[in-house]
Amino acid sequence: MGGDAAPEMVLAGARIARERVPTLKFLVFGDQAVVGPKLEAMPDLAEAVTLRHTSEVVSAEAKPSLALRRRDTSMRQAIEAVRTGEASGAVSAGNTGALMGIAMLVLGTITGIRRPAIVSYFPTRRGGEAAMLDLGANASCDAETLQQFALMGDVFVRSLLNITHPTIGLLNIGSEAAKGPEVLRQAAARIKDSPLGARFHGFVEGDDIAAGTVDVIVTDGFTGNVALKTAEGTAKLMAGFLEDAFRSSPLAKLGYLLARGALAKLKLRADPRRYNGAMLIGLNGIVVKSHGGTDALGFASAISVAHDLVRHRFRERIASEVAALASPAQPDAPVVASGGASAR
Amino acid sequence: MGGDAAPEMVLAGARIARERVPTLKFLVFGDQAVVGPKLEAMPDLAEAVTLRHTSEVVSAEAKPSLALRRRDTSMRQAIEAVRTGEASGAVSAGNTGALMGIAMLVLGTITGIRRPAIVSYFPTRRGGEAAMLDLGANASCDAETLQQFALMGDVFVRSLLNITHPTIGLLNIGSEAAKGPEVLRQAAARIKDSPLGARFHGFVEGDDIAAGTVDVIVTDGFTGNVALKTAEGTAKLMAGFLEDAFRSSPLAKLGYLLARGALAKLKLRADPRRYNGAMLIGLNGIVVKSHGGTDALGFASAISVAHDLVRHRFRERIASEVAALASPAQPDAPVVASGGASAR
Repeated sequence: MGGDAAPEMVLAGARIARERVPTLKFLVFGDQAVVGPKLEAMPDLAEAVTLRHTSEVVSAEAKPSLALRRRDTSMRQAIEAVRTGEASGAVSAGNTGALMGIAMLVLGTITGIRRPAIVSYFPTRRGGEAAMLDLGANASCDAETLQQFALMGDVFVRSLLNITHPTIGLLNIGSEAAKGPEVLRQAAARIKDSPLGARFHGFVEGDDIAAGTVDVIVTDGFTGNVALKTAEGTAKLMAGFLEDAFRSSPLAKLGYLLARGALAKLKLRADPRRYNGAMLIGLNGIVVKSHGGTDALGFASAISVAHDLVRHRFRERIASEVAALASPAQPDAPVVASGGASAR
Repeated sequence: MGGDAAPEMVLAGARIARERVPTLKFLVFGDQAVVGPKLEAMPDLAEAVTLRHTSEVVSAEAKPSLALRRRDTSMRQAIEAVRTGEASGAVSAGNTGALMGIAMLVLGTITGIRRPAIVSYFPTRRGGEAAMLDLGANASCDAETLQQFALMGDVFVRSLLNITHPTIGLLNIGSEAAKGPEVLRQAAARIKDSPLGARFHGFVEGDDIAAGTVDVIVTDGFTGNVALKTAEGTAKLMAGFLEDAFRSSPLAKLGYLLARGALAKLKLRADPRRYNGAMLIGLNGIVVKSHGGTDALGFASAISVAHDLVRHRFRERIASEVAALASPAQPDAPVVASGGASAR
């Protein structure tokens, strides 16, 4: 029920995803009266879908705290299905704050992980892709949380992007070690001293994201969200300028016609729909957030992303790496007999 | 002496600026032995230049605190010339932190302005330009400082971009009033209650910068710097993708040849050198920071920006608007006789 063009876009996206991976099966949560007839009109998809009626919807404007109280929303029920194991993962184009809040409440974080994060990946000039987190789950983060994001980002690019020896950068306003806020210098020191130390590139700046200077960009959710949306806005601006240029003279129009095939490939390469699907990671379950304004193709990408996370056993890998990291540093404290309560 | 290609780039930039505005005169501060011969080789420029020998240089890596202690650096002497009134403004491609620190120390801020800011402007999809501040002078800002940035941004776009009724937005991770950190909600309340209230659009997101949703984007220096550099990086990425596309087939190459003129205009329209020259505002004097990696054309833009600030009496306008704003809100407190010291 979430997203500007739902539920049609969700069903059409599921159909595209199933054309790519014919073994996929879907639990669809929503209003039977609305979704049912649309699903009946797509018999090829319907055979792979179990529709579950839910009586409520989390609106795009709903406060997460209010959304948390309602039990029969499509969003809540989809995440409950992940908790019970009936679904391998959930995909939603609905309200991000509510999705994060419900996922936290229902699934909880992986043992040892303080805060979940939103991660996604982007094309780079170097070729290949780079991942960035957090993209908006936590407006501010302490040094330990940023260190955990580095760990999760490292597992992410090794699992999903097949980068065997990733490099990690902390987003800052200068690359020198003395730059930026204290929390970033503390986070840098922590990452350097951790088993990830050898992969830590140091501080990176905004232009390093698209340059591909590192494979993982670690930042707080405020900065990451602004950077992500600024990049999207700039890409749209450039595409608009390009269209204007091709329309500006008859010769340019002819040039466009000749280069059309190559330009279509460019468009595909930079198509934000290919990169749709921000992953909520650090949770005891797979949850993927699709852009609310996406179309069926974009929603299919978000489903693919969820499928990738499941296939690559991403959650289990993070859990085991966090456990391995925690065990040498935090051995069980020996039991010490104590004669009395301390003064404070 | 500052910038990757200095001093050649600085002199060549001054020559271009003077071709545009033949009445410009320059005080050039630097090492006589290095700059002197290069200047002699440019007799057309030399007639407009007074070269002042300085014995030291602020390096790109220098800590601002150390740079502040050295008195005979080219950077310090250029700003001293602004203080004495010998120069109408200073332009430097050197170390940003040092430039800001020295400008603060030597010039001080305009009465009533708490912190200076770095401002620049960018092309938008809507057409025209939008200004953003702070771009890196203050990593974190309180609500009152953000309110003052809104005021300075408003004067900036009215003076320099000729926008008579500007709109102002606060950069956040959502447009709803309840979104983001507390300091932004406080700043929004302050701007709403100020004489700028009618021009306040509310919160904007990263993609609103290039969309041109508002004329002035207000943010802290950390976020602004990341957003600026992310936009630059994305623009380079897109330009690289476009080049790849035109090289990808013989037909695409032919298309490029036909559309070349239009594409050259596009390149010019998005050329970061056109937008080179970040202004340090809120100070008792005009100081413009050029990108360190710029070429002569970019440095000429930075000189033009300084010239615009001087011509439009930008500093005086901010000073008078701040004074007008302060006077009704902060009347002189009446003298109250007090019998004794308070308990605390």
